[in-house]
Amino acid sequence: MGGEKVGRADERLAGQLRIIRETYDLANDPEWEGLCTATSHLTGEKINRFTHIHQSIDDLLKKQQMTRFLCHRTGGCIMRCMGIDAMNALSVITYEMDQALGTDTNQNFLKYLRYWQDNDICANCAQTDTKGDRLKRPHEQADPDLYLRIIESRPDGIVVRGAKIDNTTAPVGDEIVALPTRFMTEKDNDYAVAFAIPADWEGVKMLVRPATQHKRKYLQAPIAEIGDAESFTIFDNVFIPRERVFLDGKGDPRQTAYGGFLALLFAHYHRHSYTGCKPAISEVLASASALVAEYNGIEKEAHVRDKISHMIGTAELVFAAGQVSAYRAERSTSGTYIPDEVLTNAGRRVAGEEIYNEYKTVADLAGGLCATMPFEEEFFSGETKELANKYLMRNPKVSSENQHRCFRGIENLIISEFSGVMQVGGLHGGGSPQMETITMMARYDLESLKNIAKYLFGIEKELPKYERPTVTPRKMLERFQKAYKA
Amino acid sequence: MGGEKVGRADERLAGQLRIIRETYDLANDPEWEGLCTATSHLTGEKINRFTHIHQSIDDLLKKQQMTRFLCHRTGGCIMRCMGIDAMNALSVITYEMDQALGTDTNQNFLKYLRYWQDNDICANCAQTDTKGDRLKRPHEQADPDLYLRIIESRPDGIVVRGAKIDNTTAPVGDEIVALPTRFMTEKDNDYAVAFAIPADWEGVKMLVRPATQHKRKYLQAPIAEIGDAESFTIFDNVFIPRERVFLDGKGDPRQTAYGGFLALLFAHYHRHSYTGCKPAISEVLASASALVAEYNGIEKEAHVRDKISHMIGTAELVFAAGQVSAYRAERSTSGTYIPDEVLTNAGRRVAGEEIYNEYKTVADLAGGLCATMPFEEEFFSGETKELANKYLMRNPKVSSENQHRCFRGIENLIISEFSGVMQVGGLHGGGSPQMETITMMARYDLESLKNIAKYLFGIEKELPKYERPTVTPRKMLERFQKAYKA
Amino acid sequence: MGGEKVGRADERLAGQLRIIRETYDLANDPEWEGLCTATSHLTGEKINRFTHIHQSIDDLLKKQQMTRFLCHRTGGCIMRCMGIDAMNALSVITYEMDQALGTDTNQNFLKYLRYWQDNDICANCAQTDTKGDRLKRPHEQADPDLYLRIIESRPDGIVVRGAKIDNTTAPVGDEIVALPTRFMTEKDNDYAVAFAIPADWEGVKMLVRPATQHKRKYLQAPIAEIGDAESFTIFDNVFIPRERVFLDGKGDPRQTAYGGFLALLFAHYHRHSYTGCKPAISEVLASASALVAEYNGIEKEAHVRDKISHMIGTAELVFAAGQVSAYRAERSTSGTYIPDEVLTNAGRRVAGEEIYNEYKTVADLAGGLCATMPFEEEFFSGETKELANKYLMRNPKVSSENQHRCFRGIENLIISEFSGVMQVGGLHGGGSPQMETITMMARYDLESLKNIAKYLFGIEKELPKYERPTVTPRKMLERFQKAYKA
Amino acid sequence: MGGEKVGRADERLAGQLRIIRETYDLANDPEWEGLCTATSHLTGEKINRFTHIHQSIDDLLKKQQMTRFLCHRTGGCIMRCMGIDAMNALSVITYEMDQALGTDTNQNFLKYLRYWQDNDICANCAQTDTKGDRLKRPHEQADPDLYLRIIESRPDGIVVRGAKIDNTTAPVGDEIVALPTRFMTEKDNDYAVAFAIPADWEGVKMLVRPATQHKRKYLQAPIAEIGDAESFTIFDNVFIPRERVFLDGKGDPRQTAYGGFLALLFAHYHRHSYTGCKPAISEVLASASALVAEYNGIEKEAHVRDKISHMIGTAELVFAAGQVSAYRAERSTSGTYIPDEVLTNAGRRVAGEEIYNEYKTVADLAGGLCATMPFEEEFFSGETKELANKYLMRNPKVSSENQHRCFRGIENLIISEFSGVMQVGGLHGGGSPQMETITMMARYDLESLKNIAKYLFGIEKELPKYERPTVTPRKMLERFQKAYKA
Repeated sequence: MGGEKVGRADERLAGQLRIIRETYDLANDPEWEGLCTATSHLTGEKINRFTHIHQSIDDLLKKQQMTRFLCHRTGGCIMRCMGIDAMNALSVITYEMDQALGTDTNQNFLKYLRYWQDNDICANCAQTDTKGDRLKRPHEQADPDLYLRIIESRPDGIVVRGAKIDNTTAPVGDEIVALPTRFMTEKDNDYAVAFAIPADWEGVKMLVRPATQHKRKYLQAPIAEIGDAESFTIFDNVFIPRERVFLDGKGDPRQTAYGGFLALLFAHYHRHSYTGCKPAISEVLASASALVAEYNGIEKEAHVRDKISHMIGTAELVFAAGQVSAYRAERSTSGTYIPDEVLTNAGRRVAGEEIYNEYKTVADLAGGLCATMPFEEEFFSGETKELANKYLMRNPKVSSENQHRCFRGIENLIISEFSGVMQVGGLHGGGSPQMETITMMARYDLESLKNIAKYLFGIEKELPKYERPTVTPRKMLERFQKAYKA
Repeated sequence: MGGEKVGRADERLAGQLRIIRETYDLANDPEWEGLCTATSHLTGEKINRFTHIHQSIDDLLKKQQMTRFLCHRTGGCIMRCMGIDAMNALSVITYEMDQALGTDTNQNFLKYLRYWQDNDICANCAQTDTKGDRLKRPHEQADPDLYLRIIESRPDGIVVRGAKIDNTTAPVGDEIVALPTRFMTEKDNDYAVAFAIPADWEGVKMLVRPATQHKRKYLQAPIAEIGDAESFTIFDNVFIPRERVFLDGKGDPRQTAYGGFLALLFAHYHRHSYTGCKPAISEVLASASALVAEYNGIEKEAHVRDKISHMIGTAELVFAAGQVSAYRAERSTSGTYIPDEVLTNAGRRVAGEEIYNEYKTVADLAGGLCATMPFEEEFFSGETKELANKYLMRNPKVSSENQHRCFRGIENLIISEFSGVMQVGGLHGGGSPQMETITMMARYDLESLKNIAKYLFGIEKELPKYERPTVTPRKMLERFQKAYKA
Repeated sequence: MGGEKVGRADERLAGQLRIIRETYDLANDPEWEGLCTATSHLTGEKINRFTHIHQSIDDLLKKQQMTRFLCHRTGGCIMRCMGIDAMNALSVITYEMDQALGTDTNQNFLKYLRYWQDNDICANCAQTDTKGDRLKRPHEQADPDLYLRIIESRPDGIVVRGAKIDNTTAPVGDEIVALPTRFMTEKDNDYAVAFAIPADWEGVKMLVRPATQHKRKYLQAPIAEIGDAESFTIFDNVFIPRERVFLDGKGDPRQTAYGGFLALLFAHYHRHSYTGCKPAISEVLASASALVAEYNGIEKEAHVRDKISHMIGTAELVFAAGQVSAYRAERSTSGTYIPDEVLTNAGRRVAGEEIYNEYKTVADLAGGLCATMPFEEEFFSGETKELANKYLMRNPKVSSENQHRCFRGIENLIISEFSGVMQVGGLHGGGSPQMETITMMARYDLESLKNIAKYLFGIEKELPKYERPTVTPRKMLERFQKAYKA
Repeated sequence: MGGEKVGRADERLAGQLRIIRETYDLANDPEWEGLCTATSHLTGEKINRFTHIHQSIDDLLKKQQMTRFLCHRTGGCIMRCMGIDAMNALSVITYEMDQALGTDTNQNFLKYLRYWQDNDICANCAQTDTKGDRLKRPHEQADPDLYLRIIESRPDGIVVRGAKIDNTTAPVGDEIVALPTRFMTEKDNDYAVAFAIPADWEGVKMLVRPATQHKRKYLQAPIAEIGDAESFTIFDNVFIPRERVFLDGKGDPRQTAYGGFLALLFAHYHRHSYTGCKPAISEVLASASALVAEYNGIEKEAHVRDKISHMIGTAELVFAAGQVSAYRAERSTSGTYIPDEVLTNAGRRVAGEEIYNEYKTVADLAGGLCATMPFEEEFFSGETKELANKYLMRNPKVSSENQHRCFRGIENLIISEFSGVMQVGGLHGGGSPQMETITMMARYDLESLKNIAKYLFGIEKELPKYERPTVTPRKMLERFQKAYKA
């Protein structure tokens, strides 16, 4: 960080730790038992839900609900979902692969999962490769390392080289779970790789980028204590022991094809997590909007209510999309439940499309002061103290300090470096709207949809019994397994 | 109609009858049993679902699903939901009113419901008053008849005068169920009125406005056979027998306050029905878009896929909103289930906001020809026949006739007088986006929402256990009953 | 029309003639002299501005202004611009071509123009080919006639075969000016063709599609008298005398390349005309919105004012775009002025993107009645007369008849078959938003734009003197001429 | 600042000084003479255009153009326009007031203007009061100081107390020009006050809020050197000499009414300035988008071109709106030119509505890396240097350093605290979209607009000769003067 090697105690990482802490504290709080905890299907013991593999529709619903509630407490991203999303994807794909290829990866995975549950592991999922020239496939790049690749595959493990970026939580997490970023062709065997390692493993170099809030001296508040840290993680010839390897296209080229599914399925679980956090973020922004509108005395204005109601509406619809995705989930052969893809993507997309607009509404209702607010000190010391507080007064029913807290909080929420990172995260995290459109259209069967028009226009005499024209992950994998065997 | 008294056999009403017919045919088709039929809670017999009072979450889910499927077959509005939506609202309110006031309206209602179920009644719900000066309440209007009112209340019944507008289906339906359009104050007792009568009752005068498609000579198609008919219904001193009166604020001023609830609850059931039909309409338009894109050879273009995916996304989200509204439904004391209001309104609003945009997409992908298409005859007769078909050819894999059918169908779908009516219906039916925003904000508890910001900004030390800050119909009624007793 | 051969006196064409009439009447009205008339650069005589070649920036400004004013009177499209837009494009391209190739087409053009001006000619421009498979070029089509082509080129003229669609005004106009629809390659020589002929010429077969309003019996109004008529025009081996041929790629393959410029330049003039008519259409819709909001008594509501102000804003911005395009026009070598392309396209695009939204606003503020309004007769005869008028009353300051007129007018404006055609015309006429984006990006020099970021980011030391990074038609032609000579 | 009194040499103010410097450097650069300089109407000498009173349409056009060009060089806001916008407003209003009331304020103003021009003064305009409870007028506030007010008016000057917020440039400017923020009633006489004083005048206390970029160590770039500083300016019983007082409602209550005009006219000039800077900001963001799309290798994608073309389109339309506003400017009696209000507001509004969307597009095309980019040091030192640069590579034609510069630049542009301030400034500066809608509707004559619908619907027989239904500042003042005399 900034040219120096720092430990996890570096104060620039404190904000992210503060967020992660909530995921431990609330799991230990009896009030949230059953929501923030789950029952392990391996051991039957109570575990943190962030280490659980979804065994039912109810698990998916609870995961979504837990995410929403925790994000209210952290004012946004809870930063621990990607690890368990990766684990759920691995639980399905390692099982399917073993079934088809006779490999025994799933056993390794389950052992590793047991370790997770026993130790309440917090992990990053390292998926996004640096990708070099985006028009070329991994093996076509000028520098072969621009996608993470296996340099060597041997009986005791593999050696990997490359880098993964946009790695939230990696700087403070216990483990890194690395997954492929896209489908691979036969020529990309070396790039079909998945594994897990401790975050401080030999050869792992993290270039860490923190984003924090201005330190407060007088007015402590949760919003001011949170922060983000992202890692540009370089794997500089890193050895991964075999029992921690979950995909090895170099050692066994038959595994390559599963890389794409793994990429996709992780993205899918992660987008479903977004149907929990995004509504919370909309609600946090709506909550700030409603509060500052009250303090500014404009809360009854028609345009104000209209704008807030649209943020609420987005939150409700995105959450509903995730809920119905859960209700329509299907059980994979491994026993893990997979939510509906079309709806999950439709929900996540709306959230991504609206996020900048929601920041705009907060700014709109707050007025310019949130961007021009004098520093905290001017309100607490010296000759300006009394004057600064005097002139801050708006709604006479609210104390000057609370008005100060409100505008200071909104400054943290929408004007800080941290908020810039959150905007981009709200757009890109889990895949940008562009990606969701592509996924939706890949899963949606347009030919079946066209039957409606063909019937109405008299091109076909009958309208076939309508089924929602979507391709489930199950069907997709089945098709793939069949094609593979043939 | 046009200055003449016409019967139901008038050919301008055939299009609407064609639509209504589907609701009977499919209920009698074993393939759709359980979806288009239900089990009467009165008799335990199989009845048309369009005559059923929702006894469970599953009933609400089925109603929504049935509506979507039927609307695929009619290319849009199924035109029979408003009647049963009114009946569901009456089932709740008459029961609540009896409980509170000791009246016996619910008995009358149940008898009337039995008649519905036995005879598979199709009814219009006449809600919208002409409203005169919209800034004035009913009793303040220059002409006291601008809202439907009770002229006389006597033991054997009431006499009403006034008019209701935008009455879809009334011209072909068996019955008219009349409900109030808004909350009433004490001075508006005469206007608190609800009842049901046969559509051809003495004193009922319908000014009927049909909207049909150009009659086809050569290419028959379902889309060309449908039509709409709306009634401007005048009640010219109409006597309603007591057993068909469900609200009488003139006879019993204590009933007045229930008028508003009835208006609201009908609107609510009706908006929930819209979460079934609107997705279907989006899908019909998306289906036509996908088909014409294929015929035009542009289906792989990025912008085309993007536009279609947004129509699909809207359909999925609105349907999901309705589904989750059903999952969150609460059982009223009468036994009837009431879906969630915030979500239902959020879903219906998106549909209304998008409708014109969806027509735009169909027009966009179809190109100008859908608006400039020569008449059918030019393709089938005389010297132009061969030439017209020759020059229509686009995608060489599709026959000229099917290309003709496609553009002719789109003409019906988006260029006709009928489509103009459907656009307005898509915007206003069940209440315009403006009304849904108002309802949402009335049901959403902003103070609870503000707690999130208060906690994050350090204004409050604790974040109260989060509950979705909405007021359910149950809670609303309870508050009202309490206030009333006090 | 409908299988019959009809003359211009057919009553279904009366609505379009009613519109065209305005362009003659107002040019003869001294009040509008200078605006609706111009001074011929050929003869120095006063002519109808619809027959004028733009000789100055002021001509472009006046053309735009005249279009806006006339469209207010016809409630939309004035239907005579495409002819003179085609003539302006021909005035430039025939001159350029003669300069480069030594042909003498411009002389023929000027003679023909003289005929126009002397006879105040109203013409259609037939540009859009039927286009068959849109992924194939003209010569690649299964049927070679799917783009209009030259069958034979001989000294006295050419013989053409094919069809043009979406031909507004052709059914009532004096002449048809035919132009190519796209750029052509060497293999498409036969398809590089432009000419003008009388609309009733031998071999020209028009399949005419009218769109009219319901005939009024009682309440006459301009909006009810207008109509559209579109032609699907088939050229069934039509001979064109040489002096009426303006492009002949078959006879002289060097001319082929000019076909694309002609297509482009016509589209450009036509889009500039749209910066005149589109603001008028937005204003017509805004005017109806404001009027019905007053009659409905909601004109002071914040959301109503917001919606109307956005329609006004669109009108103002689109008109401003056209005006600045005129101010930045450049004089071509032929003397004809050509407006700025980037701005013209940016303006036209906004209008196209907003049109469906504007219809939505009218429907929103009018309420459902505009779609469910009983027929005129019910308000004027028999037992319903008095009742119908009684219940129509809203704003007590406005007579029942005027309220009737207002809703009847809005019905014509947004619910009729005619309005469906106008919606599609508003989107596609002159090229859909998609086409304007493509044109804008072709004319805009992104490399120059990038200089700003390169300077700010320290990639380049200096920011080159900023010029608006656009390619003018002049520059484009020069490049082409140079390339051609080389 | 942060509890300490600091001078202008404080390094946190360097970024703003860097921006202001451009306005001096380029005015002294012969290349920009005539654009960045003007000819004083007082002395006939060459002056910085930022000290000039607009004497012609050309002056308004040049001001707009200069603003656009300078903003390209500073990556956004030029921070010097508000001073001269205030001076232009004063030039009109002091003259009008003298004419009507026989006061001699304009003489003082002109003397002060001479001082500006001679010394190339850079000033802040302090307009926004803290406003307290926004539902109450100035004199109704709990604390009478919540709007800036005159405590005492005596022959040699006035004493003022209160505060102004959102004061860009005040921390580094020479002077502060204070103006009222709204219309005042008779009871608000004390609050009708305008004056100018040196920024370091006795009793003026600035609470300064800087927003800067992370300091660069290795890769210098203009974008990293700029910054903002805003002042919360407290006037703690400040004496203003009479010759620097331009409005004194306490001393002469007849002046009170001119306060509102002054507020309005300053806002108007300032919004017209925004039609210069906002297009530049859109272009800066579009430029960054185009550059990063190239570096990411996605520049040919349809959705990328579509998004960039919309930013360009916004820039073009907003600039065109300002240009046409200038072309339609009217000369006030004082000789100062006033641009068109409806168009200026329509243009500024679009810019405000789009700003967050434009940031979204940059983030969209850049991808997540702009938010997760490691610190500069990791690319230049120690063991990470080589690896960091290796893995940054995308487009192989671009050096790693330039790719670094691009993402670092985008980080500054959209992820920094500075960018948060710029987002809010883009929305609120010069008045938020809400304010522009209100202004537009106040100036637009809806009754005249309704004439179009009245004619088309047959409610009026004739369409009155159309004039753009707007009220000019001239007309507005005339009405006021008349009303005042009566």
